[in-house]
Amino acid sequence: MRIVDIREVTIDLNGAISNAIINFNKHTVSLVALISDQFSEGKPIVGFGFNSIGRFAQGGILRERMLPRLAKVTPEHLLSSDGCGFDAGVLAQIAMKDEKPGGHGDRAGALAALELAAWDLNAKLLGEPAYKTLRRYFGVVESVESIPVYAAGGYYYPKDSLKRLSDELLNYQDIGYRSFKIKIGAGEITEDISRIETAITIAGCGSKIAVDANGCFDQQQALDMAAAIEPFKLRWFEEPGDPLDFDLNRNLIESYSGSVATGENLFSSMDARNLMRFGGMRLGKDIFQMDPGLAYGITEYHSILETLEEFGHQRKQCHPHGGHLINLHVALGLGLGGCEAYPGVFQPIGGYSSQCSLENGRIAPSDAPGFGLEQKQDLYPLLCELVN
Amino acid sequence: MRIVDIREVTIDLNGAISNAIINFNKHTVSLVALISDQFSEGKPIVGFGFNSIGRFAQGGILRERMLPRLAKVTPEHLLSSDGCGFDAGVLAQIAMKDEKPGGHGDRAGALAALELAAWDLNAKLLGEPAYKTLRRYFGVVESVESIPVYAAGGYYYPKDSLKRLSDELLNYQDIGYRSFKIKIGAGEITEDISRIETAITIAGCGSKIAVDANGCFDQQQALDMAAAIEPFKLRWFEEPGDPLDFDLNRNLIESYSGSVATGENLFSSMDARNLMRFGGMRLGKDIFQMDPGLAYGITEYHSILETLEEFGHQRKQCHPHGGHLINLHVALGLGLGGCEAYPGVFQPIGGYSSQCSLENGRIAPSDAPGFGLEQKQDLYPLLCELVN
Repeated sequence: MRIVDIREVTIDLNGAISNAIINFNKHTVSLVALISDQFSEGKPIVGFGFNSIGRFAQGGILRERMLPRLAKVTPEHLLSSDGCGFDAGVLAQIAMKDEKPGGHGDRAGALAALELAAWDLNAKLLGEPAYKTLRRYFGVVESVESIPVYAAGGYYYPKDSLKRLSDELLNYQDIGYRSFKIKIGAGEITEDISRIETAITIAGCGSKIAVDANGCFDQQQALDMAAAIEPFKLRWFEEPGDPLDFDLNRNLIESYSGSVATGENLFSSMDARNLMRFGGMRLGKDIFQMDPGLAYGITEYHSILETLEEFGHQRKQCHPHGGHLINLHVALGLGLGGCEAYPGVFQPIGGYSSQCSLENGRIAPSDAPGFGLEQKQDLYPLLCELVN
Repeated sequence: MRIVDIREVTIDLNGAISNAIINFNKHTVSLVALISDQFSEGKPIVGFGFNSIGRFAQGGILRERMLPRLAKVTPEHLLSSDGCGFDAGVLAQIAMKDEKPGGHGDRAGALAALELAAWDLNAKLLGEPAYKTLRRYFGVVESVESIPVYAAGGYYYPKDSLKRLSDELLNYQDIGYRSFKIKIGAGEITEDISRIETAITIAGCGSKIAVDANGCFDQQQALDMAAAIEPFKLRWFEEPGDPLDFDLNRNLIESYSGSVATGENLFSSMDARNLMRFGGMRLGKDIFQMDPGLAYGITEYHSILETLEEFGHQRKQCHPHGGHLINLHVALGLGLGGCEAYPGVFQPIGGYSSQCSLENGRIAPSDAPGFGLEQKQDLYPLLCELVN
């Protein structure tokens, strides 16, 4: 058994909503295919992976550094020890040869796309959904078939802002979401308070509303916002300041009784360890959002979970960034707290397939093999194009 | 006045020595040219920059993200407020549009190549060496014309190791170097001690020998090595462990009386700030090696210097990684402690031009405009090829 070809392509993220504060249209994703010499129903079995959403495709790093390193190894070297699949950790090690320590940025996304494709391939070789492969491989004892999911969005609208925010969240509620995350920090605190009150009216209570500052606050602004939102007993206050400003995070936590969430912009277990050492994150309370698709893949992500547990945190505190099928399987397979969704945006990479079931704020994958990316209608043609 | 074209090319690093522990042959560099509409002696004035040495070219990030952003702005937007040159900080801001916080890795090198080219261009427009432009721009009062430089190398050799190490350092001494840096950590401590004793015999005293572990030690190994080398009163002990393991660095410093050097693998002012907050670095004693060519360029590097000074450190504690003409001008222009050299390796990017004067362990640039890269014989043809 061997991998006969590795291909990558840059995908534009369409379906962006034009009036959000971030220009989603500029973000791209690397889609990677690991083509095996095994066949199912007359077609080669192919593993697909991508580097999550919200950053950029990494074709340059894949083509210039990682793929040439993988092309040099003998195919057997990539096999798992039981011979039933491929060793994602070994693949990652080879792809990272001659890379220095530190500098966990773009290359962490490039490797992730490759490494995640290996997990998709392994699950397909076993003919099972990826979350089952992950549970077996990492020894996760977990029998639930669905996990909590919340709808992220809650954008700013230039006109008729509160009404449109309300419409947006009501739409999510109609689809089946019960918890929501909305943006804060783009205007005055009073405006954000009105937005939070609007959201709570729809959700029913503050514990179903998280707020996301996207790292925009300095220390004082973060403290001011925390004081203003404290009475609402919100689900969490996300990324108050620069993701590497561990002092800011710790100082905020010391003066805020609600949960704080961060980590989507930390791309290695050493960066995550520093958050645990210096960021003041509280056991069983604060939320970790590291995203395997931006952070070297599942092998590294699992070592982040081990680090969390070494510090006494629980993996249920983890809600990875990136609302898509890969992180649904990761969250369900590794026993995390839940996952997110960005309904309607980041297409064709973001979101879930119609075969996934979304009910009462919980989501379950279908029984499609691997991550089930083939069931995503707008993504399927791109998968075919990459392989054919 | 405007920039009419921006070009980039990947340069292979030749002249690698085959028996060093790092495979220099695999490392590449992005060379960037900012071509202006101004002329000197009938030829366009062009600014050149590159992303230092020891990592990789960043053509993908430049072509796919940064150059398209710069292509969209009106040319006047890039002019400095006095109209005499281009604003490197504005250029950097535009090239980083839509980039999220955190993840300071490959893109920091991509931007650096661009940003450094703007400084080369500005100095050429003024007809002066870049260090003078930097002094004026940043208000650095400094009149010296040369700075301390040491020869880095001290490789492991498979056979006749001590004799060959000795020959290597004697060769550096013949060229004009007085201080040396040698590798440690690849074998047993006793072997490294013999190597250090050999080096001291040539240099005359421990204070002229630095040792570089390239981040290979865990906490206990770093402490063991520190205890073993303490009696030699070495110049510094460089990068004992993972560059982001601030606890390891602080613990080492607490038990080691000599200087510790680190930072070459920290690529942003926030990462550098975390080193100062958590790494235990001692005022006036430990050494910072952040490299503008790997860390978003001189604008960001200067903000790192301001952060250092905010913490009470002195910029004389800075000896940037990367022995080449750009960092010679940066070190001399910003009043740093000195720079390094890797004689014979990392060509054609590494090293100094023959017009630089190296005497008694100090180096001075020539009076060529900009960084004087055109005077580097093996680099000059590549500069011409990129522009013509």
